[in-house]
Amino acid sequence: MLTGQQYLESLNDGRTTYLHGRRVDDLLAEPAFAVPAQAIAQGYDNCYSNADDAVNPYIFAPRSIEEMRSRTDVLTGMDMAISVTYQSLMTLLTASPKLAGLDPVYRERIQAYVDDAIARDIRIAECITDAKGDRSLPPGKQRDPDSYVRVVERRTDGVVIRGAKLHITAAALCHEHLVMPTKAMKPGEEDYAIVCAVPANAPGVRTINTTFHPADDDNRHFPVSRLASMPDAMVVYDDVFVPYDRVFLDGEVSMAAVFAHSLGLWERLGGLTFMVRQADELVGFAQLIAEANGLGGVSHIREKIDEMSIHATLLRAGLEAAIANARSTDEGFYYPDELFTNAAKYQGAAQFGVMVRHLHDIGGGAILTAPTIGDLENAETRGYVEKYMTASGDVSAEDRIRLFHAIRDSTADAYGGWHLVTNLQSGGGLYAQRIVTRKHFDMERAKGYAREAAGLDDE
Amino acid sequence: MLTGQQYLESLNDGRTTYLHGRRVDDLLAEPAFAVPAQAIAQGYDNCYSNADDAVNPYIFAPRSIEEMRSRTDVLTGMDMAISVTYQSLMTLLTASPKLAGLDPVYRERIQAYVDDAIARDIRIAECITDAKGDRSLPPGKQRDPDSYVRVVERRTDGVVIRGAKLHITAAALCHEHLVMPTKAMKPGEEDYAIVCAVPANAPGVRTINTTFHPADDDNRHFPVSRLASMPDAMVVYDDVFVPYDRVFLDGEVSMAAVFAHSLGLWERLGGLTFMVRQADELVGFAQLIAEANGLGGVSHIREKIDEMSIHATLLRAGLEAAIANARSTDEGFYYPDELFTNAAKYQGAAQFGVMVRHLHDIGGGAILTAPTIGDLENAETRGYVEKYMTASGDVSAEDRIRLFHAIRDSTADAYGGWHLVTNLQSGGGLYAQRIVTRKHFDMERAKGYAREAAGLDDE
Amino acid sequence: MLTGQQYLESLNDGRTTYLHGRRVDDLLAEPAFAVPAQAIAQGYDNCYSNADDAVNPYIFAPRSIEEMRSRTDVLTGMDMAISVTYQSLMTLLTASPKLAGLDPVYRERIQAYVDDAIARDIRIAECITDAKGDRSLPPGKQRDPDSYVRVVERRTDGVVIRGAKLHITAAALCHEHLVMPTKAMKPGEEDYAIVCAVPANAPGVRTINTTFHPADDDNRHFPVSRLASMPDAMVVYDDVFVPYDRVFLDGEVSMAAVFAHSLGLWERLGGLTFMVRQADELVGFAQLIAEANGLGGVSHIREKIDEMSIHATLLRAGLEAAIANARSTDEGFYYPDELFTNAAKYQGAAQFGVMVRHLHDIGGGAILTAPTIGDLENAETRGYVEKYMTASGDVSAEDRIRLFHAIRDSTADAYGGWHLVTNLQSGGGLYAQRIVTRKHFDMERAKGYAREAAGLDDE
Amino acid sequence: MLTGQQYLESLNDGRTTYLHGRRVDDLLAEPAFAVPAQAIAQGYDNCYSNADDAVNPYIFAPRSIEEMRSRTDVLTGMDMAISVTYQSLMTLLTASPKLAGLDPVYRERIQAYVDDAIARDIRIAECITDAKGDRSLPPGKQRDPDSYVRVVERRTDGVVIRGAKLHITAAALCHEHLVMPTKAMKPGEEDYAIVCAVPANAPGVRTINTTFHPADDDNRHFPVSRLASMPDAMVVYDDVFVPYDRVFLDGEVSMAAVFAHSLGLWERLGGLTFMVRQADELVGFAQLIAEANGLGGVSHIREKIDEMSIHATLLRAGLEAAIANARSTDEGFYYPDELFTNAAKYQGAAQFGVMVRHLHDIGGGAILTAPTIGDLENAETRGYVEKYMTASGDVSAEDRIRLFHAIRDSTADAYGGWHLVTNLQSGGGLYAQRIVTRKHFDMERAKGYAREAAGLDDE
Repeated sequence: MLTGQQYLESLNDGRTTYLHGRRVDDLLAEPAFAVPAQAIAQGYDNCYSNADDAVNPYIFAPRSIEEMRSRTDVLTGMDMAISVTYQSLMTLLTASPKLAGLDPVYRERIQAYVDDAIARDIRIAECITDAKGDRSLPPGKQRDPDSYVRVVERRTDGVVIRGAKLHITAAALCHEHLVMPTKAMKPGEEDYAIVCAVPANAPGVRTINTTFHPADDDNRHFPVSRLASMPDAMVVYDDVFVPYDRVFLDGEVSMAAVFAHSLGLWERLGGLTFMVRQADELVGFAQLIAEANGLGGVSHIREKIDEMSIHATLLRAGLEAAIANARSTDEGFYYPDELFTNAAKYQGAAQFGVMVRHLHDIGGGAILTAPTIGDLENAETRGYVEKYMTASGDVSAEDRIRLFHAIRDSTADAYGGWHLVTNLQSGGGLYAQRIVTRKHFDMERAKGYAREAAGLDDE
Repeated sequence: MLTGQQYLESLNDGRTTYLHGRRVDDLLAEPAFAVPAQAIAQGYDNCYSNADDAVNPYIFAPRSIEEMRSRTDVLTGMDMAISVTYQSLMTLLTASPKLAGLDPVYRERIQAYVDDAIARDIRIAECITDAKGDRSLPPGKQRDPDSYVRVVERRTDGVVIRGAKLHITAAALCHEHLVMPTKAMKPGEEDYAIVCAVPANAPGVRTINTTFHPADDDNRHFPVSRLASMPDAMVVYDDVFVPYDRVFLDGEVSMAAVFAHSLGLWERLGGLTFMVRQADELVGFAQLIAEANGLGGVSHIREKIDEMSIHATLLRAGLEAAIANARSTDEGFYYPDELFTNAAKYQGAAQFGVMVRHLHDIGGGAILTAPTIGDLENAETRGYVEKYMTASGDVSAEDRIRLFHAIRDSTADAYGGWHLVTNLQSGGGLYAQRIVTRKHFDMERAKGYAREAAGLDDE
Repeated sequence: MLTGQQYLESLNDGRTTYLHGRRVDDLLAEPAFAVPAQAIAQGYDNCYSNADDAVNPYIFAPRSIEEMRSRTDVLTGMDMAISVTYQSLMTLLTASPKLAGLDPVYRERIQAYVDDAIARDIRIAECITDAKGDRSLPPGKQRDPDSYVRVVERRTDGVVIRGAKLHITAAALCHEHLVMPTKAMKPGEEDYAIVCAVPANAPGVRTINTTFHPADDDNRHFPVSRLASMPDAMVVYDDVFVPYDRVFLDGEVSMAAVFAHSLGLWERLGGLTFMVRQADELVGFAQLIAEANGLGGVSHIREKIDEMSIHATLLRAGLEAAIANARSTDEGFYYPDELFTNAAKYQGAAQFGVMVRHLHDIGGGAILTAPTIGDLENAETRGYVEKYMTASGDVSAEDRIRLFHAIRDSTADAYGGWHLVTNLQSGGGLYAQRIVTRKHFDMERAKGYAREAAGLDDE
Repeated sequence: MLTGQQYLESLNDGRTTYLHGRRVDDLLAEPAFAVPAQAIAQGYDNCYSNADDAVNPYIFAPRSIEEMRSRTDVLTGMDMAISVTYQSLMTLLTASPKLAGLDPVYRERIQAYVDDAIARDIRIAECITDAKGDRSLPPGKQRDPDSYVRVVERRTDGVVIRGAKLHITAAALCHEHLVMPTKAMKPGEEDYAIVCAVPANAPGVRTINTTFHPADDDNRHFPVSRLASMPDAMVVYDDVFVPYDRVFLDGEVSMAAVFAHSLGLWERLGGLTFMVRQADELVGFAQLIAEANGLGGVSHIREKIDEMSIHATLLRAGLEAAIANARSTDEGFYYPDELFTNAAKYQGAAQFGVMVRHLHDIGGGAILTAPTIGDLENAETRGYVEKYMTASGDVSAEDRIRLFHAIRDSTADAYGGWHLVTNLQSGGGLYAQRIVTRKHFDMERAKGYAREAAGLDDE
């Protein structure tokens, strides 16, 4: 296993990384990379054991509903690099049995890769969304054939890929990328049916990053995002060579969507798990700021908090149902129920804005205008801030200000905006989630009830 | 056990019943009573066994999560008299352990009553909502002291009660009434802290009924409600004597709310279970009528059906989570998780109108204007109806008409209106359900997440 | 002008009318026709003048914004036969100038017909929605060519039409039908591009009716619908001859949609005007029943009423804006702004269910279970009903019961269901209304703002 | 009149200003002040005339509905300092006639102040929200008597005030502050019934500012906020002397709320006007990004844009209705209808999050992850960015990126968060807006309709 320090050192591997127009060679010198890298390092240290054959205790496939439930809880509280690694490996293991009709070498390579990844204790980014070009055209008909990642050359020892993957969280800070097709492919699109693992520092790999890391000099009024930021990247594969032992699909178009479906499921489970916790956190913010404002007992405010609590409970119910109805692959790996996972994820994404509105309605304008900790420390202003930001005898001005900062940071600033978009788009936008529901909903049962009510089958 | 026929005969017991201004002595001669009575009789026949010590296989307390799950499923498909009987007995068994600090005779009477009710195979109505009078005043301060059911006399062998209970489903067709306080009581309100079982034909008991049974001559265009109606009653207790072995609480104001809370839980579980099935049925209606209209493949219609499916799945997730997280009393009787039950019930009630809107939007105006089966049978009009009500080659005009009738009957006519109100009000209106959430939501966990995000507990 | 009595007599003109499988020759002997006929007769009497050249003061085209505003207000309070007549004539007058490129005879016939209709003081039904058959196919490709009303024969003196129109309100009680294509037509569909006026008793015209008129013996617990019902019909045209002076379009496919668009506009204006009043009525119900329940001052109830009031105000704003931005035809006839009319109509239809939910949430279960006036008159039950249905000292039990009846009748029974569907479907379902918005919304202005924000046009 | 340059120079007047813990003496050296100051200066230049008695053509009271409409349009496009100045002066003029029963000197001072402010061409901040302390207590019962701004001393020539005002937009960049009570006052709270105008540089005035001005080095990916930011402030009045000619109310508690009500009206009108434009802009973003993504013709995307358009149209209808129903004071100054203004403002605030969700759902994850203009300029990455960010042949990669930046900046970053909160809180949160509706809705009309439907007034 790696220690946090070993992880940090491992980033100095020659990878090509850009941020806001600049090439960044020393990631640890750039706060937008260094801060999340430190968080990942902390995750390593938390999991570390120096036993000989120790492996990360959270990154392995659940073999029972109970294991899945406990894993899910724990992962929510950990860093995002562990989450994407877990999701990447679960995607491979869930997809693997579906490749049964193909060359058995794929399943062998998958198992070997998973075992090796666990043994090396690496972090793996999920690389799914292609650039897509003109969305009304399939991959093979694009003006630019590289609009979807494709194999441009097949050699005796491996393949060469070209293209780009978008919105890749933590790509700059993981060791490897799991590259998969974003959609089903059709005959004639064999070059696009490519699944493979690529080291982050392989020649030709470049990440162009964006971040919600606060740029402010004094980032104490970003109490959450100053520690929780994680870069997203456009990852460019400019003729990258991948040896065959890291190729898990190559040309079998009928199976191109299997990995995306598996990934979607695990991504939505991860997204849902996060949203369950986030919903609770929003309720907590609402209750605490209501109390800090001295309004904890006001009827219309309590009702809004009730509605937020009901929302949080519904999301949790979705997660509980998804896990309670988990199924296992032939190999005994459990995966969550797709329908419940997806419906709850949809609800969470669709209603997130309403929950934020309730919180802002309860909190008031000081979410935006609360003075900073700097204003509290400045001797010229400290007295005024303390005097005029105290509302309730039970909560200090400082604690109230900190609550306002945390609410703004989480829901009304760059990080809040990142949530607004990410909650919708992770695992596909609302439309994609409707399509998944369409696939899994038991329409025959529903039609049976309706036919019975209408007496259609009465003789 | 009783056969259906024995049940029907048992109704001729001298009970005092009114409908729309008329006294009805022969219930079986009045369709609004006879039809639901026949449905209840059918339920008896379905459960009947002539074994010596046979009892109804569905009416007993679940002793495991698995038993609760299977019971819940089965009860949804049965008649409402079985449902209210099950809920009544479960209410008593769930409340019983909470009476531990009181005279042990109450728990003994409850157990004896439950055993006896099961042995006699009777049906029991849940009598909870009081007339309430001026709602801004407590029971003891009302201008009319009978605004809440109360003990007006205590004799050596029993009590005499007076008052009325509102919205009592199936009261005219059950054998007994389980009378409980509608709310918590305070010292000084001892006479209102009364829980007891009253035979439906006890002297002084009267039911004044309303119904959604269709009054139409030809009720074939009410395919659901012509069979599914169930009368609701204002039940008047005009100085009704109740012997002590049927009195389960008398004067202990601190425990007055225990039964209402238990009943609320089981009612909401029943309501939720029904709504889960109803939501599926609405999806089925939407899909079938879209197909019958020849519009099953149209994008905006499929999306509305997707949203309905997601809603149905969320409700089902709530039910699954409530059962998966069921808890047991000290005596080993399982009851569902209150928070999940309540949150899902709230969602179902709050969103029902939107689901109905989607269905009406998909179905079109013929929900209202489809000709009747009579028009189809009339030789003068049959040809026109068949000619102009056929939309798709796959669905006959008659089937399409029947679907429109079933949709109108279930969602846009008297029975549909009954659902609109009942889905909201069963187990209390939306406000009551918010209050229950407030009681059970884990606010400390939520506040903990928020405090952590705001760094309030950092040193 | 006609008196009410003359109107009633005019119905005995040999028309062919069906209701629920029966042919009805004497309309005034069948309550489902007689009651609305009496309401229409009352409308005649209210407008009657015996002056020589008197005409109905409400049925003529507004020539200023002020006239349109006052007309709109007045028509809302009048019977539906006047409304559909007004809308029919306004449709013709609004469409007329758009026919400029065609044979001028059409415009002359329209003007002559309008003048004559006003002089004869007749009532005219709007016949727009075709049977449609397989909706994925155009009129000319249907298995049954009569799925859309069409000309089956052209004679020297007129045309013969065949087909059916659905959901035609008041068709059985009007003197004439204005028949129009339901959609745009294409070359090759000339026979379907037919607009004409047909007497209700012309040979070959048949109406097959549905109704929400209460079937109950004692309809006093339907205080609104027992007076307000209006039959809807499938109207069959079985080879009906129409002389040319009543033909306003015949074969010019490019103009087929003009009448439907005009009708849609006036229908939506009528629908919106009704919904503005209905929204106020729902607010009034909510406030009155809250007061009758003694809960007028409770915070969460007042807030729901506030939300209902805001909704009612928004709809009214839409109507105000539609009228304030009315435009005139070349001939000086004013018509309302299409975009505002449509957007407000959409909002009213989409949110109606939520308003009803608030009302039901506030009113409580007695909306369904309030005893009847019959129970109040029955000496055996009167005392109980008065005793237990009194909640507030300020409102009698009878008034409270009447409010519950009116709420149930308007929102939770057959008439309420009629509103649920009709509010959505009149003027087209929600999708149709979105399409209208798409046509009229000023997208260039919107894109201009966005381009400016993004700096796309900066040099 | 002042030129922009004169305005910028006027800021160097010794005012005491803080930002993020630092005192800022040279406002023009700090971008968070300098950028908005330049925008205000540009507004001065746009309005400037060197005619002798020239005044700002937009800052005077409308004397007709037509004037109000044109003013409203123009002000929306101008800088926020003009808006708050206009609102401040309109507040004074609308409130003035209501002071009729008081000492006439107040009305004279108001008129003189308004005339003088216009003559001096100054900018005036609206200072309304007090610190409030414990919100369950009135001003006079607070632990800290300064929780609401109050008169601490009355001298022969003026008063001395103490307290703080929160969320004051542009306070640091205006010349004066219009200080008003935030709520109604009661007898005994005379010291809190103070309305006055205070120069921004008066001794004792301090502003502690927050900003959404982007802190990033390269702020080109904040195309809107880098130019549109405006600081908000906590304004502290630490024993500030105000001469009597600037005191417009002093101690008359019965009139304390008059100014707040007037201000609320004008603020909500301003807020609504802004939201009308903002709603159009969101529609424009949605349409442009859909086209740039090559998805402009996809059904589910067009429908979302339709819903956004309907929302934008409803808000505009509210504004149109508010202006079309404007009323005038006795002095002939027009003010908008309060009910329509408020209902539309409520709708805009309540639904803003849903509109943003639609936009994010349409736009996709690149709202967050689009590379920067810097990445486009960097020779190492330019080719990749152009290659992989081109979706449609009709829109360049750069324009698409700029759209993503503008959407993120406006809806998913600091400025977007500022909107989320400000749209809700300006003119009071949703609860405050419900209360205003309660005050102005014509409940008697609504109850009249309901009483008529229920037949309550039938004899």
